[in-house]
Amino acid sequence: MKQLQVEADHPYSVHIGAGAFDLFADAYRSLLDAADQIVVIADERVAELHLSYLLDFLTDWDVRILTIPAGESAKSVETFMSCHSFLLSENCSRDSLLLAFGGGATGDVAGFVASTFMRGIPFIQLPTTILAHDSAVGGKTAINHELGKNMIGTFYQPKAVLYDSKLLSTLPPGEVRSGMAEVIKHAFISNEKWLEDLLAIRDFSSLTEEDLNHHLEKGIAVKAAIVEEDEFESGVRKYLNFGHTLAHALEGHLGYGKLTHGEAVVLGMSYALLLSEHSKLDKFISWSVANGYPLQLLGEIHFDALLPYMKKDKKSSKGQLNFVLLKQTGKPFIEKIEVQRASAAYEKLVLQIGEVI
Amino acid sequence: MKQLQVEADHPYSVHIGAGAFDLFADAYRSLLDAADQIVVIADERVAELHLSYLLDFLTDWDVRILTIPAGESAKSVETFMSCHSFLLSENCSRDSLLLAFGGGATGDVAGFVASTFMRGIPFIQLPTTILAHDSAVGGKTAINHELGKNMIGTFYQPKAVLYDSKLLSTLPPGEVRSGMAEVIKHAFISNEKWLEDLLAIRDFSSLTEEDLNHHLEKGIAVKAAIVEEDEFESGVRKYLNFGHTLAHALEGHLGYGKLTHGEAVVLGMSYALLLSEHSKLDKFISWSVANGYPLQLLGEIHFDALLPYMKKDKKSSKGQLNFVLLKQTGKPFIEKIEVQRASAAYEKLVLQIGEVI
Repeated sequence: MKQLQVEADHPYSVHIGAGAFDLFADAYRSLLDAADQIVVIADERVAELHLSYLLDFLTDWDVRILTIPAGESAKSVETFMSCHSFLLSENCSRDSLLLAFGGGATGDVAGFVASTFMRGIPFIQLPTTILAHDSAVGGKTAINHELGKNMIGTFYQPKAVLYDSKLLSTLPPGEVRSGMAEVIKHAFISNEKWLEDLLAIRDFSSLTEEDLNHHLEKGIAVKAAIVEEDEFESGVRKYLNFGHTLAHALEGHLGYGKLTHGEAVVLGMSYALLLSEHSKLDKFISWSVANGYPLQLLGEIHFDALLPYMKKDKKSSKGQLNFVLLKQTGKPFIEKIEVQRASAAYEKLVLQIGEVI
Repeated sequence: MKQLQVEADHPYSVHIGAGAFDLFADAYRSLLDAADQIVVIADERVAELHLSYLLDFLTDWDVRILTIPAGESAKSVETFMSCHSFLLSENCSRDSLLLAFGGGATGDVAGFVASTFMRGIPFIQLPTTILAHDSAVGGKTAINHELGKNMIGTFYQPKAVLYDSKLLSTLPPGEVRSGMAEVIKHAFISNEKWLEDLLAIRDFSSLTEEDLNHHLEKGIAVKAAIVEEDEFESGVRKYLNFGHTLAHALEGHLGYGKLTHGEAVVLGMSYALLLSEHSKLDKFISWSVANGYPLQLLGEIHFDALLPYMKKDKKSSKGQLNFVLLKQTGKPFIEKIEVQRASAAYEKLVLQIGEVI
């Protein structure tokens, strides 16, 4: 098992690998013992598959369970409020502890609940997807608004992240694909050699558990280093949004859940690479197609339909479109792009993708 | 004009007195100039009386106005979400600035919006009531849940508090009464001499603007000193809840708005003084009756109706009732009280009040 330390405002550890849940009764025993109530907020699909596995590690404590809708649909104000209702009806107090059990969406909404219940209670992230290697570290919490994704939330660090890789073995191919998008994003913004290793993968099902743990650890290390430098996203943390300006617009336009987050990010990264005139664009398009990311979707959506969403992006300001670009691997920067240039680049990308498919 | 500095995680100033709004174009000009959008969230009743007065100080900027329901009813999840909708529809970004114009409730909900819009934007508190001298300083934000007051919120400091005492001259007597309750609370937990001055008041309408500014400044200084020592309420900040365990239960039981917050706090303080066997209980009851606080209400409500609310209080833990008590003025402490003792004390208080009225 691997351990990484995140030196945020409130420092905490990320534990990656089989056996991570053994730490409840070990390193985190005193945290659990101190809680007057322990509540698990679990994605309903994850709960069906893995709740009994989790509870086997928690037999020393009396634990309450709340299941919430699976995936992104949980990030609604209704689910947010129903979590608060559950905590209050279970007589939770400021001394209660919350465990977020699920993918990134579960962590986002449960983290937002933890940060706002009685103005903040401790919580532990228990991510169950590859994608969540990204969101579980860094303390961003959020729910969605009909006018934009992740528009309502807080910066609030967990007490720990326990990432049990055993849970990843049951992930459906679509979830693996979604998660690997954020892994390769972390490679793009940090490390040429690692990026080359990832671009060589033509079929994710060929990855061993060891391979996967290795890539997850590298991804989390990149994320943790950036969070440590810029917890509240005033500087370098914005680089983590590589590919996300268009991704969020695609998700907003199509409605959350039509495209997985990782798929949207891969489409967004191909666009950012074209805007950057990065030499690996062709290779990335070919990698994306081989691994089943739906690049052809871009040809079916007009740029003008995405523009209003890009203008609302949290990275934009004074109405300009801000993108994270990348001329060289590992050297991201922010650039303001005029709408006309952005539109022309989009058309060019659609043509280029058409040539590969 | 007086100025106090609050040395919180993010330090800021509180400006008290006539002319505080002149600082928009002076000390805070660069903050307003830097904003890509300035939004005033105003209590609808306050907006009717004072919005044009406020806007006269903001003519250098293009300002958007959102009015929200008056008083405590604004602290709902619906108002919270409608504020976010407004900010998004006005294309606000992380560089936008929010001004909270109203009493404590407006500051609470607008502060919660500021702390969660795109994970946090700057805001300035513009309190318009005496009561808000308390809530505008210290960075507590909140909305209510049907199962409890202030259950959902954050700790989030404003960039500044501009407290223009001109606005206080139009306050109705009920609002003055409500606000003076938190003033005398601050005296109880800090300063015997000041408490005696306040207990000598038999009619709030006899206070001059100068008297009022003096008491507000003293109250804010007490609040600021405690917030500096304990921003996140893990220790001494709990003392500010003197009188509030019963007050919140009364508000919860009666429904928010039936009793003003200050009235509820005066009833709660009389109860805490009895539990404390404080020598000034009789004097305080007589002061309360003279100044029109509805102490007789306690005789109409059974203790058992209030108990569930007290058990849910944020200061309780592991199901016990926790109270802030006070044997000597200026020396508050926390004590766990058994339900039976709490119930007997309540009956005794009702009898004692009956003898005075």
